[in-house]
Amino acid sequence: MFPFALQDAATRIQSQFETVLGNLRPLPLTQAMGYATRGGKALRGFLVLEGAALHGVSPDRAIWPATAIEAIHAYSLVHDDLPAMDDDDLRRGLPTVHRKWDEATAILVGDALQSLGFELVADPRCHPDAGVRADLTLSLAQAAGARGMVLGQALDIAAETATTPLTLDQITDLQAGKTGALITWSAMAGARLAGADTAPLRRFGDALGLAFQIWDDVLDVEGDAETVGKAVGKDAGRGKATFVSLLGLEGAKRRAAQLVHEACTALDIYGEKAETLKDAARFVISRRN
Amino acid sequence: MFPFALQDAATRIQSQFETVLGNLRPLPLTQAMGYATRGGKALRGFLVLEGAALHGVSPDRAIWPATAIEAIHAYSLVHDDLPAMDDDDLRRGLPTVHRKWDEATAILVGDALQSLGFELVADPRCHPDAGVRADLTLSLAQAAGARGMVLGQALDIAAETATTPLTLDQITDLQAGKTGALITWSAMAGARLAGADTAPLRRFGDALGLAFQIWDDVLDVEGDAETVGKAVGKDAGRGKATFVSLLGLEGAKRRAAQLVHEACTALDIYGEKAETLKDAARFVISRRN
Repeated sequence: MFPFALQDAATRIQSQFETVLGNLRPLPLTQAMGYATRGGKALRGFLVLEGAALHGVSPDRAIWPATAIEAIHAYSLVHDDLPAMDDDDLRRGLPTVHRKWDEATAILVGDALQSLGFELVADPRCHPDAGVRADLTLSLAQAAGARGMVLGQALDIAAETATTPLTLDQITDLQAGKTGALITWSAMAGARLAGADTAPLRRFGDALGLAFQIWDDVLDVEGDAETVGKAVGKDAGRGKATFVSLLGLEGAKRRAAQLVHEACTALDIYGEKAETLKDAARFVISRRN
Repeated sequence: MFPFALQDAATRIQSQFETVLGNLRPLPLTQAMGYATRGGKALRGFLVLEGAALHGVSPDRAIWPATAIEAIHAYSLVHDDLPAMDDDDLRRGLPTVHRKWDEATAILVGDALQSLGFELVADPRCHPDAGVRADLTLSLAQAAGARGMVLGQALDIAAETATTPLTLDQITDLQAGKTGALITWSAMAGARLAGADTAPLRRFGDALGLAFQIWDDVLDVEGDAETVGKAVGKDAGRGKATFVSLLGLEGAKRRAAQLVHEACTALDIYGEKAETLKDAARFVISRRN
Protein backbone atom coordinates (compact mmCIF):
# COMPACT_ATOMS: atom_id res chain seq x y z
CA MET A 1 0.00 0.00 0.00
CA PHE A 2 1.25 3.42 -0.95
CA PRO A 3 1.86 5.41 2.24
CA PHE A 4 3.74 2.47 3.76
CA ALA A 5 5.70 1.87 0.56
CA LEU A 6 6.77 5.53 0.55
CA GLN A 7 7.79 5.39 4.20
CA ASP A 8 9.63 2.14 3.56
CA ALA A 9 11.51 3.69 0.62
CA ALA A 10 12.48 6.71 2.74
CA THR A 11 13.82 4.39 5.46
CA ARG A 12 15.86 2.27 3.05
CA ILE A 13 17.31 5.31 1.32
CA GLN A 14 18.13 6.88 4.68
CA SER A 15 19.98 3.75 5.69
CA GLN A 16 21.89 3.70 2.39
CA PHE A 17 22.91 7.35 2.90
CA GLU A 18 24.15 6.49 6.39
CA THR A 19 26.32 3.68 5.01
CA VAL A 20 27.70 5.77 2.15
CA LEU A 21 28.29 8.95 4.15
CA GLY A 22 29.70 6.89 7.03
CA ASN A 23 32.60 5.99 4.73
CA LEU A 24 33.56 9.65 4.35
CA ARG A 25 35.83 11.59 6.68
CA PRO A 26 33.91 13.08 9.64
CA LEU A 27 33.83 16.82 9.01
CA PRO A 28 31.21 19.61 9.17
CA LEU A 29 30.90 19.03 5.40
CA THR A 30 29.88 15.39 5.75
CA GLN A 31 27.65 16.07 8.78
CA ALA A 32 25.87 18.71 6.74
CA MET A 33 25.53 16.26 3.82
CA GLY A 34 23.76 13.87 6.21
CA TYR A 35 21.54 16.68 7.52
CA ALA A 36 20.59 17.75 3.99
CA THR A 37 19.58 14.22 3.01
CA ARG A 38 17.41 13.50 6.06
CA GLY A 39 13.71 14.06 6.58
CA GLY A 40 12.49 14.26 3.00
CA LYS A 41 9.55 12.31 1.61
CA ALA A 42 11.91 10.50 -0.79
CA LEU A 43 9.24 10.53 -3.47
CA ARG A 44 11.85 10.39 -6.27
CA GLY A 45 13.69 7.50 -4.65
CA PHE A 46 10.39 5.73 -4.09
CA LEU A 47 9.60 6.07 -7.81
CA VAL A 48 12.94 4.41 -8.62
CA LEU A 49 12.37 1.52 -6.20
CA GLU A 50 8.77 0.99 -7.28
CA GLY A 51 9.58 1.25 -11.00
CA ALA A 52 12.30 -1.35 -10.41
CA ALA A 53 9.89 -3.66 -8.51
CA LEU A 54 7.48 -3.37 -11.44
CA HIS A 55 10.18 -4.95 -13.60
CA GLY A 56 11.33 -7.53 -11.08
CA VAL A 57 14.62 -5.75 -10.41
CA SER A 58 16.06 -6.47 -6.95
CA PRO A 59 15.87 -3.64 -4.40
CA ASP A 60 19.58 -4.27 -3.66
CA ARG A 61 20.30 -2.85 -7.10
CA ALA A 62 17.55 -0.24 -7.25
CA ILE A 63 18.67 1.31 -3.96
CA TRP A 64 21.71 2.78 -5.78
CA PRO A 65 19.86 4.94 -8.32
CA ALA A 66 17.15 5.63 -5.69
CA THR A 67 19.77 7.08 -3.34
CA ALA A 68 21.50 8.81 -6.26
CA ILE A 69 18.39 10.74 -7.26
CA GLU A 70 17.75 11.76 -3.66
CA ALA A 71 21.35 13.03 -3.46
CA ILE A 72 20.80 15.11 -6.60
CA HIS A 73 17.46 16.36 -5.31
CA ALA A 74 18.98 17.27 -1.93
CA TYR A 75 21.83 19.14 -3.64
CA SER A 76 19.33 21.19 -5.64
CA LEU A 77 17.39 22.12 -2.49
CA VAL A 78 20.52 23.18 -0.60
CA HIS A 79 21.62 25.45 -3.46
CA ASP A 80 18.05 26.74 -4.10
CA ASP A 81 17.78 27.83 -0.48
CA LEU A 82 20.97 29.98 -0.62
CA PRO A 83 20.62 33.73 -0.03
CA ALA A 84 21.50 34.48 -3.67
CA MET A 85 18.77 32.10 -4.84
CA ASP A 86 15.46 31.73 -2.92
CA ASP A 87 16.95 32.88 0.41
CA ASP A 88 14.99 30.42 2.54
CA ASP A 89 15.55 29.88 6.26
CA LEU A 90 13.40 26.75 6.59
CA ARG A 91 13.40 23.43 4.76
CA ARG A 92 11.44 20.40 5.87
CA GLY A 93 10.60 22.42 8.99
CA LEU A 94 14.26 22.81 10.01
CA PRO A 95 16.91 25.50 9.43
CA THR A 96 18.39 25.36 5.93
CA VAL A 97 22.02 24.25 5.61
CA HIS A 98 23.41 27.78 5.15
CA ARG A 99 21.50 28.92 8.26
CA LYS A 100 22.63 25.98 10.41
CA TRP A 101 26.22 26.06 9.09
CA ASP A 102 27.20 28.82 6.67
CA GLU A 103 27.00 29.69 2.98
CA ALA A 104 30.39 28.23 2.06
CA THR A 105 29.45 24.90 3.64
CA ALA A 106 26.08 24.94 1.85
CA ILE A 107 27.74 25.54 -1.52
CA LEU A 108 30.18 22.66 -0.94
CA VAL A 109 27.48 20.34 0.44
CA GLY A 110 25.46 20.83 -2.74
CA ASP A 111 28.54 20.31 -4.92
CA ALA A 112 29.52 17.14 -3.06
CA LEU A 113 25.98 15.72 -3.14
CA GLN A 114 25.89 16.20 -6.89
CA SER A 115 29.16 14.26 -7.28
CA LEU A 116 27.80 11.62 -4.92
CA GLY A 117 24.72 11.14 -7.09
CA PHE A 118 26.92 10.23 -10.05
CA GLU A 119 29.17 8.08 -7.88
CA LEU A 120 26.15 6.02 -6.80
CA VAL A 121 24.78 5.30 -10.30
CA ALA A 122 28.28 4.47 -11.54
CA ASP A 123 28.90 2.02 -8.68
CA PRO A 124 29.26 -1.57 -9.93
CA ARG A 125 26.87 -2.68 -7.16
CA CYS A 126 24.14 -0.66 -8.92
CA HIS A 127 24.15 -3.05 -11.87
CA PRO A 128 26.66 -5.63 -13.14
CA ASP A 129 26.17 -4.44 -16.73
CA ALA A 130 28.30 -1.33 -17.27
CA GLY A 131 26.06 -0.39 -20.21
CA VAL A 132 23.16 0.08 -17.80
CA ARG A 133 25.30 2.15 -15.46
CA ALA A 134 26.57 4.35 -18.30
CA ASP A 135 22.97 4.80 -19.50
CA LEU A 136 21.80 5.80 -16.01
CA THR A 137 24.73 8.23 -15.71
CA LEU A 138 24.22 9.90 -19.07
CA SER A 139 20.47 10.30 -18.59
CA LEU A 140 20.96 11.58 -15.04
CA ALA A 141 23.52 14.16 -16.18
CA GLN A 142 21.11 15.35 -18.86
CA ALA A 143 18.19 15.49 -16.41
CA ALA A 144 20.20 17.40 -13.79
CA GLY A 145 22.12 19.85 -15.96
CA ALA A 146 21.64 22.71 -18.39
CA ARG A 147 19.09 20.82 -20.48
CA GLY A 148 17.07 19.68 -17.45
CA MET A 149 16.82 20.88 -13.87
CA VAL A 150 19.37 23.71 -14.03
CA LEU A 151 17.80 24.94 -17.28
CA GLY A 152 14.47 25.21 -15.44
CA GLN A 153 16.10 27.10 -12.59
CA ALA A 154 17.77 29.51 -15.02
CA LEU A 155 14.44 30.12 -16.79
CA ASP A 156 12.89 30.74 -13.38
CA ILE A 157 15.50 33.39 -12.56
CA ALA A 158 15.07 35.00 -15.99
CA ALA A 159 11.29 35.13 -15.39
CA GLU A 160 11.77 37.14 -12.19
CA THR A 161 13.31 40.06 -14.05
CA ALA A 162 11.10 39.77 -17.16
CA THR A 163 8.71 42.67 -17.80
CA THR A 164 5.73 40.42 -18.59
CA PRO A 165 4.61 37.38 -16.57
CA LEU A 166 5.14 33.94 -18.13
CA THR A 167 2.48 32.32 -20.28
CA LEU A 168 1.10 28.87 -19.49
CA ASP A 169 3.30 27.32 -22.18
CA GLN A 170 6.38 29.04 -20.78
CA ILE A 171 5.73 28.02 -17.20
CA THR A 172 5.00 24.45 -18.30
CA ASP A 173 8.32 24.40 -20.17
CA LEU A 174 10.14 25.86 -17.15
CA GLN A 175 8.67 23.29 -14.78
CA ALA A 176 9.38 20.40 -17.14
CA GLY A 177 13.02 21.24 -16.47
CA LYS A 178 12.96 22.45 -12.90
CA THR A 179 10.89 19.68 -11.31
CA GLY A 180 9.91 17.40 -14.18
CA ALA A 181 13.30 16.19 -15.38
CA LEU A 182 14.32 14.46 -12.12
CA ILE A 183 10.85 13.00 -11.55
CA THR A 184 10.74 11.55 -15.06
CA TRP A 185 14.28 10.17 -14.63
CA SER A 186 13.17 8.55 -11.34
CA ALA A 187 10.13 6.98 -12.94
CA MET A 188 12.18 5.60 -15.86
CA ALA A 189 15.13 4.26 -13.85
CA GLY A 190 13.50 0.90 -13.09
CA ALA A 191 12.87 0.21 -16.76
CA ARG A 192 16.47 1.18 -17.53
CA LEU A 193 17.74 -1.21 -14.85
CA ALA A 194 15.67 -3.99 -16.42
CA GLY A 195 16.58 -3.09 -20.00
CA ALA A 196 12.82 -2.76 -20.65
CA ASP A 197 10.82 -0.24 -22.70
CA THR A 198 10.97 3.10 -20.88
CA ALA A 199 8.10 4.78 -22.79
CA PRO A 200 5.18 4.05 -20.39
CA LEU A 201 7.14 5.20 -17.34
CA ARG A 202 8.33 8.28 -19.23
CA ARG A 203 4.71 9.27 -19.93
CA PHE A 204 3.84 8.52 -16.29
CA GLY A 205 6.76 10.63 -15.05
CA ASP A 206 6.10 13.57 -17.36
CA ALA A 207 2.46 13.84 -16.29
CA LEU A 208 3.25 13.23 -12.63
CA GLY A 209 6.03 15.84 -12.57
CA LEU A 210 3.77 18.53 -13.93
CA ALA A 211 0.93 17.56 -11.55
CA PHE A 212 3.46 17.73 -8.70
CA GLN A 213 4.48 21.29 -9.56
CA ILE A 214 0.90 22.47 -10.06
CA TRP A 215 0.11 21.10 -6.61
CA ASP A 216 3.12 22.93 -5.15
CA ASP A 217 1.60 26.15 -6.49
CA VAL A 218 -1.74 25.18 -4.91
CA LEU A 219 0.00 24.59 -1.56
CA ASP A 220 1.77 27.95 -1.85
CA VAL A 221 -1.71 29.53 -1.81
CA GLU A 222 -3.67 27.16 0.44
CA GLY A 223 -1.04 25.80 2.80
CA ASP A 224 0.42 27.17 6.00
CA ALA A 225 4.16 27.27 6.59
CA GLU A 226 4.07 24.87 9.53
CA THR A 227 2.41 22.07 7.57
CA VAL A 228 4.26 22.72 4.31
CA GLY A 229 7.60 22.92 6.14
CA LYS A 230 8.83 25.97 4.25
CA ALA A 231 7.74 29.54 3.58
CA VAL A 232 4.42 29.85 1.67
CA GLY A 233 2.70 32.68 -0.20
CA LYS A 234 6.06 33.76 -1.61
CA ASP A 235 5.17 33.45 -5.29
CA ALA A 236 1.88 35.35 -5.05
CA GLY A 237 3.65 37.98 -2.93
CA ARG A 238 6.22 38.51 -5.68
CA GLY A 239 3.56 38.85 -8.41
CA LYS A 240 5.15 35.83 -10.11
CA ALA A 241 3.12 33.82 -12.62
CA THR A 242 2.16 30.40 -11.25
CA PHE A 243 -0.24 27.70 -12.38
CA VAL A 244 -2.71 29.14 -9.88
CA SER A 245 -2.38 32.70 -11.14
CA LEU A 246 -2.81 31.47 -14.72
CA LEU A 247 -5.52 28.83 -14.24
CA GLY A 248 -7.20 29.96 -11.03
CA LEU A 249 -7.21 27.79 -7.90
CA GLU A 250 -9.96 25.45 -9.09
CA GLY A 251 -8.61 25.37 -12.64
CA ALA A 252 -5.16 24.39 -11.33
CA LYS A 253 -6.64 21.61 -9.20
CA ARG A 254 -8.63 20.31 -12.20
CA ARG A 255 -5.53 20.34 -14.42
CA ALA A 256 -3.53 18.46 -11.77
CA ALA A 257 -6.26 15.84 -11.44
CA GLN A 258 -6.36 15.43 -15.23
CA LEU A 259 -2.58 14.92 -15.33
CA VAL A 260 -2.75 12.32 -12.57
CA HIS A 261 -5.39 10.50 -14.61
CA GLU A 262 -3.06 10.59 -17.63
CA ALA A 263 -0.19 9.32 -15.48
CA CYS A 264 -2.26 6.39 -14.24
CA THR A 265 -3.51 5.51 -17.72
CA ALA A 266 0.08 5.32 -18.96
CA LEU A 267 0.63 2.45 -16.51
CA ASP A 268 -2.46 0.40 -17.47
CA ILE A 269 -0.17 -1.80 -19.56
CA TYR A 270 1.38 -3.10 -16.30
CA GLY A 271 -1.98 -4.19 -14.82
CA GLU A 272 -2.43 -4.68 -11.05
CA LYS A 273 1.30 -4.47 -10.37
CA ALA A 274 1.25 -0.72 -10.98
CA GLU A 275 -1.32 0.06 -8.28
CA THR A 276 1.21 1.44 -5.81
CA LEU A 277 2.64 3.82 -8.43
CA LYS A 278 -0.87 4.93 -9.32
CA ASP A 279 -1.57 5.55 -5.63
CA ALA A 280 1.60 7.62 -5.51
CA ALA A 281 0.31 9.75 -8.38
CA ARG A 282 -2.99 10.27 -6.55
CA PHE A 283 -1.07 11.15 -3.38
CA VAL A 284 0.79 13.94 -5.18
CA ILE A 285 -2.45 15.92 -5.53
CA SER A 286 -3.72 15.25 -2.03
CA ARG A 287 -0.55 16.02 -0.08
CA ARG A 288 -0.44 18.96 2.34
CA ASN A 289 3.34 19.38 2.15
CA MET B 1 56.88 20.12 -28.20
CA PHE B 2 55.24 21.07 -24.95
CA PRO B 3 54.11 24.69 -25.17
CA PHE B 4 52.55 24.04 -28.58
CA ALA B 5 50.94 20.80 -27.42
CA LEU B 6 49.35 22.67 -24.50
CA GLN B 7 48.09 25.43 -26.78
CA ASP B 8 46.80 22.83 -29.22
CA ALA B 9 44.94 21.02 -26.42
CA ALA B 10 43.37 24.28 -25.24
CA THR B 11 42.19 25.02 -28.79
CA ARG B 12 40.67 21.57 -29.30
CA ILE B 13 38.92 21.64 -25.95
CA GLN B 14 37.63 25.14 -26.64
CA SER B 15 36.19 23.96 -29.91
CA GLN B 16 34.55 20.96 -28.22
CA PHE B 17 32.98 23.26 -25.60
CA GLU B 18 31.61 25.45 -28.39
CA THR B 19 29.99 22.45 -30.06
CA VAL B 20 28.55 21.07 -26.83
CA LEU B 21 27.34 24.39 -25.41
CA GLY B 22 26.02 25.39 -28.85
CA ASN B 23 23.48 22.57 -28.50
CA LEU B 24 22.03 24.16 -25.35
CA ARG B 25 19.34 26.80 -25.26
CA PRO B 26 20.79 30.34 -25.61
CA LEU B 27 20.37 31.92 -22.18
CA PRO B 28 22.53 33.98 -19.80
CA LEU B 29 23.23 30.62 -18.09
CA THR B 30 24.73 29.04 -21.19
CA GLN B 31 26.58 32.22 -22.20
CA ALA B 32 28.11 32.28 -18.74
CA MET B 33 29.02 28.59 -19.04
CA GLY B 34 30.93 29.47 -22.23
CA TYR B 35 32.62 32.42 -20.51
CA ALA B 36 33.67 30.26 -17.55
CA THR B 37 35.25 27.65 -19.80
CA ARG B 38 37.27 30.07 -21.96
CA GLY B 39 40.79 31.36 -21.51
CA GLY B 40 42.23 28.71 -19.22
CA LYS B 41 45.53 26.92 -19.77
CA ALA B 42 43.64 23.60 -20.08
CA LEU B 43 46.49 21.81 -18.30
CA ARG B 44 44.16 19.06 -17.03
CA GLY B 45 42.64 18.51 -20.46
CA PHE B 46 46.12 18.45 -21.97
CA LEU B 47 47.12 15.72 -19.51
CA VAL B 48 44.13 13.65 -20.65
CA LEU B 49 44.93 14.11 -24.36
CA GLU B 50 48.63 13.46 -23.89
CA GLY B 51 48.08 10.43 -21.63
CA ALA B 52 45.75 9.07 -24.31
CA ALA B 53 48.30 9.69 -27.07
CA LEU B 54 50.88 7.82 -24.99
CA HIS B 55 48.61 4.76 -25.26
CA GLY B 56 47.65 5.22 -28.90
CA VAL B 57 44.09 6.28 -28.08
CA SER B 58 42.51 8.48 -30.75
CA PRO B 59 42.09 12.19 -29.89
CA ASP B 60 38.48 11.90 -31.09
CA ARG B 61 37.81 9.77 -28.03
CA ALA B 62 40.14 11.51 -25.60
CA ILE B 63 38.57 14.90 -26.30
CA TRP B 64 35.50 13.78 -24.29
CA PRO B 65 37.20 13.19 -20.93
CA ALA B 66 39.56 16.11 -21.67
CA THR B 67 36.60 18.46 -22.02
CA ALA B 68 34.87 16.79 -19.07
CA ILE B 69 37.72 17.49 -16.68
CA GLU B 70 37.95 21.10 -17.84
CA ALA B 71 34.19 21.45 -17.20
CA ILE B 72 34.66 20.11 -13.66
CA HIS B 73 37.69 22.36 -13.12
CA ALA B 74 35.79 25.40 -14.43
CA TYR B 75 32.83 24.62 -12.13
CA SER B 76 35.16 24.50 -9.14
CA LEU B 77 36.69 27.88 -10.02
CA VAL B 78 33.30 29.57 -10.47
CA HIS B 79 32.12 28.33 -7.07
CA ASP B 80 35.49 29.04 -5.39
CA ASP B 81 35.32 32.66 -6.54
CA LEU B 82 31.88 33.27 -4.95
CA PRO B 83 31.63 35.90 -2.18
CA ALA B 84 30.92 33.21 0.44
CA MET B 85 34.06 31.32 -0.64
CA ASP B 86 37.22 33.16 -1.79
CA ASP B 87 35.34 36.31 -2.87
CA ASP B 88 37.45 36.97 -5.94
CA ASP B 89 36.70 39.62 -8.56
CA LEU B 90 39.25 38.47 -11.12
CA ARG B 91 39.88 35.12 -12.77
CA ARG B 92 42.17 34.62 -15.76
CA GLY B 93 42.46 38.42 -15.83
CA LEU B 94 38.71 38.94 -16.36
CA PRO B 95 35.76 39.58 -14.03
CA THR B 96 34.59 36.42 -12.26
CA VAL B 97 31.18 35.01 -13.28
CA HIS B 98 29.35 36.39 -10.24
CA ARG B 99 30.84 39.86 -10.93
CA LYS B 100 29.97 39.82 -14.64
CA TRP B 101 26.51 38.25 -14.10
CA ASP B 102 25.33 37.67 -10.54
CA GLU B 103 25.69 35.16 -7.71
CA ALA B 104 22.63 33.10 -8.63
CA THR B 105 23.92 32.69 -12.18
CA ALA B 106 27.37 31.74 -10.87
CA ILE B 107 25.91 29.07 -8.58
CA LEU B 108 23.88 27.59 -11.45
CA VAL B 109 26.78 27.82 -13.93
CA GLY B 110 28.94 25.78 -11.56
CA ASP B 111 26.15 23.26 -10.97
CA ALA B 112 25.49 22.87 -14.70
CA LEU B 113 29.19 22.54 -15.54
CA GLN B 114 29.51 19.74 -13.01
CA SER B 115 26.60 17.86 -14.62
CA LEU B 116 28.15 18.54 -18.02
CA GLY B 117 31.41 16.93 -16.94
CA PHE B 118 29.61 13.68 -16.16
CA GLU B 119 27.54 13.94 -19.34
CA LEU B 120 30.73 14.12 -21.39
CA VAL B 121 32.45 11.06 -19.88
CA ALA B 122 29.21 9.05 -20.13
CA ASP B 123 28.74 9.94 -23.81
CA PRO B 124 29.01 6.87 -26.06
CA ARG B 125 31.31 8.87 -28.35
CA CYS B 126 33.84 8.96 -25.49
CA HIS B 127 34.41 5.21 -25.76
CA PRO B 128 32.42 2.38 -27.35
CA ASP B 129 32.99 0.17 -24.29
CA ALA B 130 30.47 1.14 -21.60
CA GLY B 131 32.77 -0.40 -18.99
CA VAL B 132 35.38 2.25 -19.76
CA ARG B 133 32.79 5.00 -19.56
CA ALA B 134 31.43 3.72 -16.24
CA ASP B 135 35.01 3.51 -14.90
CA LEU B 136 35.76 7.10 -16.00
CA THR B 137 32.48 8.27 -14.41
CA LEU B 138 33.00 6.53 -11.09
CA SER B 139 36.61 7.69 -10.74
CA LEU B 140 35.66 11.25 -11.76
CA ALA B 141 32.85 11.36 -9.19
CA GLN B 142 35.27 10.18 -6.51
CA ALA B 143 37.93 12.70 -7.56
CA ALA B 144 35.48 15.60 -7.66
CA GLY B 145 33.38 14.92 -4.55
CA ALA B 146 33.64 14.58 -0.80
CA ARG B 147 36.60 12.19 -0.93
CA GLY B 148 38.51 14.34 -3.45
CA MET B 149 38.30 17.98 -4.50
CA VAL B 150 35.39 19.05 -2.28
CA LEU B 151 37.01 17.30 0.69
CA GLY B 152 40.10 19.45 0.11
CA GLN B 153 38.00 22.59 -0.09
CA ALA B 154 36.20 21.71 3.15
CA LEU B 155 39.53 21.09 4.89
CA ASP B 156 40.70 24.46 3.57
CA ILE B 157 37.67 26.22 5.07
CA ALA B 158 38.12 24.37 8.38
CA ALA B 159 41.78 25.50 8.43
CA GLU B 160 40.76 29.15 8.21
CA THR B 161 38.96 29.03 11.53
CA ALA B 162 41.41 26.67 13.25
CA THR B 163 43.38 28.10 16.15
CA THR B 164 46.71 26.63 15.02
CA PRO B 165 48.13 26.76 11.48
CA LEU B 166 48.22 23.50 9.51
CA THR B 167 51.26 21.24 9.62
CA LEU B 168 53.07 20.15 6.46
CA ASP B 169 51.31 16.77 6.55
CA GLN B 170 47.92 18.40 6.93
CA ILE B 171 48.45 20.85 4.10
CA THR B 172 49.78 18.07 1.87
CA ASP B 173 46.65 16.04 2.62
CA LEU B 174 44.41 19.03 1.97
CA GLN B 175 46.05 19.76 -1.37
CA ALA B 176 45.97 16.13 -2.46
CA GLY B 177 42.20 16.59 -2.44
CA LYS B 178 41.79 20.19 -3.47
CA THR B 179 44.12 20.27 -6.48
CA GLY B 180 45.64 16.81 -6.64
CA ALA B 181 42.56 14.64 -7.21
CA LEU B 182 41.56 16.20 -10.55
CA ILE B 183 45.17 16.36 -11.80
CA THR B 184 45.74 12.69 -10.98
CA TRP B 185 42.43 11.75 -12.64
CA SER B 186 43.51 13.70 -15.74
CA ALA B 187 46.86 11.97 -15.87
CA MET B 188 45.26 8.53 -15.50
CA ALA B 189 42.39 8.98 -17.96
CA GLY B 190 44.43 7.97 -21.03
CA ALA B 191 45.43 4.67 -19.44
CA ARG B 192 41.78 4.06 -18.47
CA LEU B 193 40.68 4.73 -22.07
CA ALA B 194 43.25 2.20 -23.27
CA GLY B 195 42.52 -0.35 -20.57
CA ALA B 196 46.22 -0.14 -19.63
CA ASP B 197 47.99 -0.13 -16.25
CA THR B 198 47.20 3.21 -14.58
CA ALA B 199 49.92 2.99 -11.89
CA PRO B 200 52.73 4.96 -13.63
CA LEU B 201 50.40 7.81 -14.57
CA ARG B 202 48.94 7.82 -11.07
CA ARG B 203 52.42 8.32 -9.60
CA PHE B 204 53.11 10.99 -12.21
CA GLY B 205 49.81 12.76 -11.43
CA ASP B 206 50.20 12.62 -7.66
CA ALA B 207 53.67 14.17 -7.77
CA LEU B 208 52.71 16.71 -10.41
CA GLY B 209 49.57 17.81 -8.53
CA LEU B 210 51.52 18.52 -5.37
CA ALA B 211 54.27 20.35 -7.30
CA PHE B 212 51.55 22.39 -8.98
CA GLN B 213 50.09 23.51 -5.67
CA ILE B 214 53.47 24.30 -4.13
CA TRP B 215 54.19 26.46 -7.17
CA ASP B 216 50.84 28.23 -6.73
CA ASP B 217 51.95 29.17 -3.24
CA VAL B 218 55.27 30.40 -4.65
CA LEU B 219 53.39 32.55 -7.20
CA ASP B 220 51.18 33.93 -4.43
CA VAL B 221 54.37 35.35 -2.89
CA GLU B 222 56.48 36.14 -5.95
CA GLY B 223 53.91 36.94 -8.62
CA ASP B 224 52.07 40.14 -9.42
CA ALA B 225 48.30 40.12 -9.97
CA GLU B 226 48.53 41.21 -13.60
CA THR B 227 50.71 38.29 -14.67
CA VAL B 228 49.04 35.71 -12.42
CA GLY B 229 45.57 36.83 -13.56
CA LYS B 230 44.07 36.79 -10.06
CA ALA B 231 44.68 38.41 -6.70
CA VAL B 232 48.02 37.51 -5.11
CA GLY B 233 49.45 37.79 -1.59
CA LYS B 234 46.09 36.74 -0.15
CA ASP B 235 47.28 33.71 1.77
CA ALA B 236 50.21 35.44 3.42
CA GLY B 237 47.95 38.40 4.22
CA ARG B 238 45.55 36.07 6.04
CA GLY B 239 48.30 34.41 8.07
CA LYS B 240 47.32 31.10 6.46
CA ALA B 241 49.80 28.23 6.43
CA THR B 242 51.15 27.57 2.92
CA PHE B 243 54.00 25.48 1.54
CA VAL B 244 56.05 28.69 1.47
CA SER B 245 55.29 29.59 5.10
CA LEU B 246 56.18 26.05 6.15
CA LEU B 247 59.19 25.36 3.92
CA GLY B 248 60.41 28.87 3.14
CA LEU B 249 60.51 30.22 -0.42
CA GLU B 250 63.67 28.34 -1.44
CA GLY B 251 62.61 25.20 0.40
CA ALA B 252 59.25 25.23 -1.39
CA LYS B 253 60.95 25.62 -4.76
CA ARG B 254 63.35 22.76 -3.97
CA ARG B 255 60.46 20.49 -2.92
CA ALA B 256 58.56 21.32 -6.09
CA ALA B 257 61.61 20.52 -8.24
CA GLN B 258 62.07 17.23 -6.40
CA LEU B 259 58.42 16.30 -7.03
CA VAL B 260 58.76 17.13 -10.71
CA HIS B 261 61.78 14.84 -10.84
CA GLU B 262 59.69 12.07 -9.22
CA ALA B 263 56.88 12.69 -11.70
CA CYS B 264 59.28 12.37 -14.65
CA THR B 265 60.89 9.22 -13.28
CA ALA B 266 57.47 7.58 -13.02
CA LEU B 267 57.17 7.91 -16.81
CA ASP B 268 60.57 6.43 -17.70
CA ILE B 269 58.80 3.16 -18.50
CA TYR B 270 57.22 4.87 -21.54
CA GLY B 271 60.57 5.96 -23.01
CA GLU B 272 60.81 8.82 -25.51
CA LYS B 273 57.04 8.97 -26.03
CA ALA B 274 56.57 10.57 -22.61
CA GLU B 275 58.82 13.58 -23.32
CA THR B 276 55.90 16.00 -23.79
CA LEU B 277 54.36 15.00 -20.45
CA LYS B 278 57.74 15.38 -18.77
CA ASP B 279 58.06 18.85 -20.32
CA ALA B 280 54.61 19.64 -18.92
CA ALA B 281 55.79 18.67 -15.46
CA ARG B 282 58.83 20.93 -15.83
CA PHE B 283 56.57 23.73 -17.06
CA VAL B 284 54.47 23.55 -13.90
CA ILE B 285 57.39 24.84 -11.82
CA SER B 286 58.45 27.53 -14.28
CA ARG B 287 55.06 29.08 -15.00
CA ARG B 288 54.32 32.68 -14.00
CA ASN B 289 50.56 32.21 -13.85
